[in-house]
Amino acid sequence: MPKKVVTLGEIMLRLSPPGYKKFVQAESFDVNYGGSEANVAAAICNYGEQGIFVSKVPGNAIGQAAINHLRRYGVDTQFITRGGERLGIYFLETGTSVRASQVIYDRAGASFAEADTNEFDFDKILEGAHWFHTSGITPALSDKAAVLTEAALKAAKAKGITTSIDLNYRKKLWSKEKATQVMSRLCQYADVCIGILEDENELPPTTAAGAGNEPSFEALKEALKQMQARFGFKYIAATLRESHSASENSISALLYDGTAFHHSTEYKVGIVDRVGGGDGFAGGLIYGLLTGMNMKDAAEFGTAAAALKHTIHGDFSHAALSEVKALLKGDASGKLQR
Amino acid sequence: MPKKVVTLGEIMLRLSPPGYKKFVQAESFDVNYGGSEANVAAAICNYGEQGIFVSKVPGNAIGQAAINHLRRYGVDTQFITRGGERLGIYFLETGTSVRASQVIYDRAGASFAEADTNEFDFDKILEGAHWFHTSGITPALSDKAAVLTEAALKAAKAKGITTSIDLNYRKKLWSKEKATQVMSRLCQYADVCIGILEDENELPPTTAAGAGNEPSFEALKEALKQMQARFGFKYIAATLRESHSASENSISALLYDGTAFHHSTEYKVGIVDRVGGGDGFAGGLIYGLLTGMNMKDAAEFGTAAAALKHTIHGDFSHAALSEVKALLKGDASGKLQR
Amino acid sequence: MPKKVVTLGEIMLRLSPPGYKKFVQAESFDVNYGGSEANVAAAICNYGEQGIFVSKVPGNAIGQAAINHLRRYGVDTQFITRGGERLGIYFLETGTSVRASQVIYDRAGASFAEADTNEFDFDKILEGAHWFHTSGITPALSDKAAVLTEAALKAAKAKGITTSIDLNYRKKLWSKEKATQVMSRLCQYADVCIGILEDENELPPTTAAGAGNEPSFEALKEALKQMQARFGFKYIAATLRESHSASENSISALLYDGTAFHHSTEYKVGIVDRVGGGDGFAGGLIYGLLTGMNMKDAAEFGTAAAALKHTIHGDFSHAALSEVKALLKGDASGKLQR
Amino acid sequence: MPKKVVTLGEIMLRLSPPGYKKFVQAESFDVNYGGSEANVAAAICNYGEQGIFVSKVPGNAIGQAAINHLRRYGVDTQFITRGGERLGIYFLETGTSVRASQVIYDRAGASFAEADTNEFDFDKILEGAHWFHTSGITPALSDKAAVLTEAALKAAKAKGITTSIDLNYRKKLWSKEKATQVMSRLCQYADVCIGILEDENELPPTTAAGAGNEPSFEALKEALKQMQARFGFKYIAATLRESHSASENSISALLYDGTAFHHSTEYKVGIVDRVGGGDGFAGGLIYGLLTGMNMKDAAEFGTAAAALKHTIHGDFSHAALSEVKALLKGDASGKLQR
Amino acid sequence: MPKKVVTLGEIMLRLSPPGYKKFVQAESFDVNYGGSEANVAAAICNYGEQGIFVSKVPGNAIGQAAINHLRRYGVDTQFITRGGERLGIYFLETGTSVRASQVIYDRAGASFAEADTNEFDFDKILEGAHWFHTSGITPALSDKAAVLTEAALKAAKAKGITTSIDLNYRKKLWSKEKATQVMSRLCQYADVCIGILEDENELPPTTAAGAGNEPSFEALKEALKQMQARFGFKYIAATLRESHSASENSISALLYDGTAFHHSTEYKVGIVDRVGGGDGFAGGLIYGLLTGMNMKDAAEFGTAAAALKHTIHGDFSHAALSEVKALLKGDASGKLQR
Amino acid sequence: MPKKVVTLGEIMLRLSPPGYKKFVQAESFDVNYGGSEANVAAAICNYGEQGIFVSKVPGNAIGQAAINHLRRYGVDTQFITRGGERLGIYFLETGTSVRASQVIYDRAGASFAEADTNEFDFDKILEGAHWFHTSGITPALSDKAAVLTEAALKAAKAKGITTSIDLNYRKKLWSKEKATQVMSRLCQYADVCIGILEDENELPPTTAAGAGNEPSFEALKEALKQMQARFGFKYIAATLRESHSASENSISALLYDGTAFHHSTEYKVGIVDRVGGGDGFAGGLIYGLLTGMNMKDAAEFGTAAAALKHTIHGDFSHAALSEVKALLKGDASGKLQR
Repeated sequence: MPKKVVTLGEIMLRLSPPGYKKFVQAESFDVNYGGSEANVAAAICNYGEQGIFVSKVPGNAIGQAAINHLRRYGVDTQFITRGGERLGIYFLETGTSVRASQVIYDRAGASFAEADTNEFDFDKILEGAHWFHTSGITPALSDKAAVLTEAALKAAKAKGITTSIDLNYRKKLWSKEKATQVMSRLCQYADVCIGILEDENELPPTTAAGAGNEPSFEALKEALKQMQARFGFKYIAATLRESHSASENSISALLYDGTAFHHSTEYKVGIVDRVGGGDGFAGGLIYGLLTGMNMKDAAEFGTAAAALKHTIHGDFSHAALSEVKALLKGDASGKLQR
Repeated sequence: MPKKVVTLGEIMLRLSPPGYKKFVQAESFDVNYGGSEANVAAAICNYGEQGIFVSKVPGNAIGQAAINHLRRYGVDTQFITRGGERLGIYFLETGTSVRASQVIYDRAGASFAEADTNEFDFDKILEGAHWFHTSGITPALSDKAAVLTEAALKAAKAKGITTSIDLNYRKKLWSKEKATQVMSRLCQYADVCIGILEDENELPPTTAAGAGNEPSFEALKEALKQMQARFGFKYIAATLRESHSASENSISALLYDGTAFHHSTEYKVGIVDRVGGGDGFAGGLIYGLLTGMNMKDAAEFGTAAAALKHTIHGDFSHAALSEVKALLKGDASGKLQR
Repeated sequence: MPKKVVTLGEIMLRLSPPGYKKFVQAESFDVNYGGSEANVAAAICNYGEQGIFVSKVPGNAIGQAAINHLRRYGVDTQFITRGGERLGIYFLETGTSVRASQVIYDRAGASFAEADTNEFDFDKILEGAHWFHTSGITPALSDKAAVLTEAALKAAKAKGITTSIDLNYRKKLWSKEKATQVMSRLCQYADVCIGILEDENELPPTTAAGAGNEPSFEALKEALKQMQARFGFKYIAATLRESHSASENSISALLYDGTAFHHSTEYKVGIVDRVGGGDGFAGGLIYGLLTGMNMKDAAEFGTAAAALKHTIHGDFSHAALSEVKALLKGDASGKLQR
Repeated sequence: MPKKVVTLGEIMLRLSPPGYKKFVQAESFDVNYGGSEANVAAAICNYGEQGIFVSKVPGNAIGQAAINHLRRYGVDTQFITRGGERLGIYFLETGTSVRASQVIYDRAGASFAEADTNEFDFDKILEGAHWFHTSGITPALSDKAAVLTEAALKAAKAKGITTSIDLNYRKKLWSKEKATQVMSRLCQYADVCIGILEDENELPPTTAAGAGNEPSFEALKEALKQMQARFGFKYIAATLRESHSASENSISALLYDGTAFHHSTEYKVGIVDRVGGGDGFAGGLIYGLLTGMNMKDAAEFGTAAAALKHTIHGDFSHAALSEVKALLKGDASGKLQR
Repeated sequence: MPKKVVTLGEIMLRLSPPGYKKFVQAESFDVNYGGSEANVAAAICNYGEQGIFVSKVPGNAIGQAAINHLRRYGVDTQFITRGGERLGIYFLETGTSVRASQVIYDRAGASFAEADTNEFDFDKILEGAHWFHTSGITPALSDKAAVLTEAALKAAKAKGITTSIDLNYRKKLWSKEKATQVMSRLCQYADVCIGILEDENELPPTTAAGAGNEPSFEALKEALKQMQARFGFKYIAATLRESHSASENSISALLYDGTAFHHSTEYKVGIVDRVGGGDGFAGGLIYGLLTGMNMKDAAEFGTAAAALKHTIHGDFSHAALSEVKALLKGDASGKLQR
Repeated sequence: MPKKVVTLGEIMLRLSPPGYKKFVQAESFDVNYGGSEANVAAAICNYGEQGIFVSKVPGNAIGQAAINHLRRYGVDTQFITRGGERLGIYFLETGTSVRASQVIYDRAGASFAEADTNEFDFDKILEGAHWFHTSGITPALSDKAAVLTEAALKAAKAKGITTSIDLNYRKKLWSKEKATQVMSRLCQYADVCIGILEDENELPPTTAAGAGNEPSFEALKEALKQMQARFGFKYIAATLRESHSASENSISALLYDGTAFHHSTEYKVGIVDRVGGGDGFAGGLIYGLLTGMNMKDAAEFGTAAAALKHTIHGDFSHAALSEVKALLKGDASGKLQR
């Protein structure tokens, strides 16, 4: 019997020039659909559990295509409502070597950002759920979305469901001040806090001073400790990423349970698609904790899952459970499987 | 010395599934850029004159790509301003046989629709211009855009430049009532009125009753006469289209100069891309009148140009002058040219 | 509350050279998944009801991809079992004009053909179902599959669920003699019999003499009458197809309820993809009858749905309900919808 | 034991924008290789006999790719020499409906056009051959090529091999005067003369007056009679083509044996690729005569083969013998073969 | 005068998602054809000698396409028989970085595996041949195929033709026990034994204990010595591969002549296509020995050829002789050649 | 007010197999247009200044497509004349790892190489220009082109415009002797000399002995000193490239002003497209000097621009000014920009 993980957020149409073409060279765009929480729901399904994604999409064929993309990869879409004006879009130009990937957001006015809380019946949505997950992107979309996020967290909390938040600070969506204020409130509902320690995208609400700079490893540990102390998280996690180039990163994760830290294996990964790497970690970590792994194993699973995500085109994690397990066993040699 | 034709309007990113795929099947979108007035400017350049397109696009790579598309086909883009939030988008699903093409607009909040009149110096823009053209789509985009359209027409009129409007009623943008009111005012600045007589998209401001229905040929003539009488157009044109299927239409045009009608040759065309067919006619007609053709020759040129546009992928007319001329000579046999 | 339609059969990997390329020219194959009953389940979902497809696929990534294709288009795949050796394949070369499309089957040894009846719990599968559908292809796959088909029909019948069979004779799978024998037995369980009157693929079990020849319209009526009399079908339907070329067919349908015939509108269709045309009719007819249409309306819906299927790439029907309805209203003009 | 047919001529790299894109829109070119005599050799192989193509290509990878293309489709390339400067190129833009296909030749300086007669040992090349074929394009390429053509024909004649010439007048390569002079000399070596009666491309050396105009059917018969009388051809053939549009032609053929005419079945064909249609006829006619068909059957075979060629992408005929035979039996319905 | 190398084995249709897409993401498959012995025959042709591939393919267009692929790259296909049920298929998902490539075989029931020995006239096939090559995959396909393999080796031996076997153990095809038994018998006919020392795919029949583990370099030498002693091979070779990741391997080769070892240069290669790397070595080694190179030069040629194969899409080696030679001269800098 | 940079040279059609396919595998070619001086003009436009490219292209659609490609990226094409026989072509096969990229030139007889000096009115062309640039490729094309190059340089010099030459020795176009003689004359007109120190492609006219060998760093400095002394260049630059493989190079640049050297930062770059790397440096250096940077900054800008060019498909530099600046600030980490 698969376990239910409910996630809440926006799903966007992703448009990217094929290969390493620049936007100005593109004569076609590869079409994908993704968003932080949708990516996590898809990862959960990918490993055999039941991911349920809650959102709102427009009642046109583009909204339907987003739903179809989720369904294709097993995500339960029954609680996605239809209506509003448009599906948010993001344009992605894939960088390589010394050239960084570029993202252009075109998400204002999206159906989800304009959705009302009363469009979602969380009592029904969360029925039988084992986990609820969202990210700091969702409340950043609009004031309505912030209200919705809090309502969902509150409902999950009330039902005794484990909750997690990936802080995911997006500076184009809101100021640090507003983010700190809102996220500090939301963090109170979270059992598990998942952050991506990456330049200014990181949002440690308790460390105003260091925010925006890649903290040293020790500073990071200290920040995690402080956050855990302040919010009482069961677990708090952070990924560490060293960008050697747009084509090669080293990634690992740090997980803290209020008592001890586990610093995972570090993987050097060649990058096919950088987007969704953090969600790959979140999905893997949640899967691990959901299925009863201990802190160490869950952190390792999440990190291996994140590493593999970087080798896969699109926002979603499609590396099979068997592939994650092989990597966990130390086989990063990429030998032909035949 | 090429003649200058200035056009004003919105240019959108066009996203279409390859071939005859439905939106829900698309894994990639073909990328084009177009819009009624941009298409006319491109047609003018295609025949060797100077098309100048005036608009506003966002200051990002998507806006730049729209400009690059125009430049590629020779359009003068020096008066396109940069700024605002986004480039409008339209999604196009290409139909065939008994299945119609579908358009989904996602153009709200586009940079051009939000542009202020004072962002454009029409004195400079229209310097040395021989023709100014816009369409009923432009004032429909927003109140700001309606003000801008009137300012442009007024400036052109003041400089003694020939002006034209393609009525192009879009029911998704405004009501018939508002359209009739605004367009009646704008028509007073127009020397040439170009309409597409096609179901409810047609907008004859003087014929409230018949609006929305494909009028009979005689009713059409009568409507053109009334409009000419009311607004004093030098020429008023209308295209006639019989849709046999999404793959085959018959098209012709009717041109009236206040005295006599010319009904052009009718072409049965196999359709590669239906979008921009009307702009193909407008571009051809303007080219004809601009270069001194008489009413009959200009109508025939416009109709042949429109017929050829239907065989070409994208919004723009790329059929060479030599190809239009060959069709005008009666050679619709499509014999291999080698 | 959507109505449940359960279908049983094989789903295959479909490999087709892009465009009109011959097999010997292909450097890539377009990938689709389909099969008569899967196509019907997808059509049911496409119109908003719940299609449940029952089958067996291998426990590898190719089997998973088939399931994902079904899920993408809304088909409930929870009763598809995993195991066996391989997914059946068919190669499709798309013809045009005087050149016919070619199909090469490579389906021997497929997981579904080797599946045992006890791998499926029809009591559970059919719980709450409104309709059960299969085709003459399923029992033709293997003796095991014939046993399975009969078991499913018997179970549906026992539960009072409406049942339908599309005769779909495939000469490459079994002899006429065996087909006649087996199908005569299975027809006894069917409420609705759906046949495709097309050269030798037709299988009227009661008309041994005429089998294999396109019967005259009157002979067809007579054959339908005899079959209805023999098996007591509530409805028996047949499609009529005139092949003008590989690119253009005229299609209509004949429906008989034991009392009267309804001969539907005939559509001349330009063909993008001929495969699944009959299933498009079956899916449309079942949808019509399922949702309470009368004989005439259901036959018309099925025929319009079939016509639209021919314009769509792949095995599945993706024309929206709104598109079918527009065609039913007589709008075959394919006018651009914007 | 397959029969040997030797053909002599140039093979070019063919570059065409995908689909119906105009040259100015192309971001990629489809790559094919072809030329009148190469196409005939490929057709011979396609029907199961042994086509041997004699030519010269540059000693680089582009020349090798041309050879590989021939080999792929079974053509014997052992007598193709390597050297010289370049492979000739032709650019092809595929037209549709009222828009004609366009060809741009870039063949000057090609290795074959600069080849010396002594680079080919016709004694060895023609050993065991049953047929030798070339076209009016070969001697038109250069004076050297004209000398080479005559040497080849002379050698074939000396060995008692049946010879054929397809007149194929190309106005961009030489004047009518020069063509008439050279071809009149070469025709003396030909047993079978094959012409394409198509506007100015036709070259009836004996009818100076009518040259360049599509003769009436009676005038065509008269011209064939005169040519036969003058040169003593065993057979002289001509194709008749009515171009309804770039997408649809009607084609038939006329064959004369000095005594009687056979006018073949006329096929209306939807066009995927117009190029090589005449070579498709030539290949089919030669195959027919080579394998012992009578005049009528050979003409019918050639015409059906030509019709099918129009439905196939690229210069070569890939319709299988079984497909030609099905069409000859009158089945132009394009019914799905499964 | 090119030297003849005859190889015997299965050729399969290879289907791979484009780029690094996972199977579940694929909407198209790239089409290639390959198999260990076909790859060797193609390599021989690639370097200018005559590769003759002996096999059986089905008498349909897919079988023909496999033959065409071979012919395209110069392989002599005259001894490939037609018939049987199907062409074997393998699906290839290309990995990168920490994600391994995956192969799914679907080769049961293939025409070649079901072929009888008497379908091949080895007396004729081997006439004038200088070398005969096969691999351990061929006898593993079926008992019939094992009989056929032995018959071919025996015939070659009887004619005094040099023979080689690439052990190529495939655990999905047979057990180690059966493989050891059969291969021990077949090795008695081999002059040259070529193995790929790679985890469990290696099959050193004489070293039961170590089989399946990557032996140490010294253990490998010892194993080669023992095998040479037992079977009296003229040469025995092994490749050494260090998999840094799915994208980067280091490869070298070890060749032993019963007296001395030569350990080749090691190349670090970026991988475009891992499949066929071992066959690239085998093809290069055979070419070297065939054309009279000494042990060292042949081993170096094979290793450089194998390195280059990894940079080429598809199963076959297409790196030109000049490219292998440049690499042999130590130029691995990849400088632009213009 | 953008500054005008005029460049003179040939633009070619570039045809390259997609991805890493070999020429013999290509079924399509990616289409680009480029040439050393066109690439520089495009780079200038890319950074916001006005690049004007002077050349001659044939009066057909291929010539027009070359112009459209230039226009797309902002290059002023008003002084490109039309006529002559053909557009030069180069075929590019992209290498990777140990396999080098290959170029096949097919540029003989190109319109530009045959152009007369009097087809260009340099008085008008150079009006208001700030910089004139050409390369050693241009005079190498033909004697006519050498005369044209000298005339252009002389005219620029006479107008007091800063001039630059990129020596760019191409051994396939002329001998070292002729190159040395002609370039020595042309260097007298140059203010800035830009060379690419790469094996035999480098041409230091003053160092006959060392020409063709990659000089040591000190020898390079000495050579630059000598050249500066002989010709009195204001600046002389050289790029240094270490080819680790076809996929990875390290590049830096050395700039000398007659007094001091600046050796730039060295970048290790992963290569998407090696062609145009040197032009990327030239364009960046010219941009730097043109906009008033000092020697150091200009050299650094040019080197960073060159590094980024290697990550971009096609001949042209499309990395935005902001991307170059980010790299100059030391951010080579390729972090996702969102």
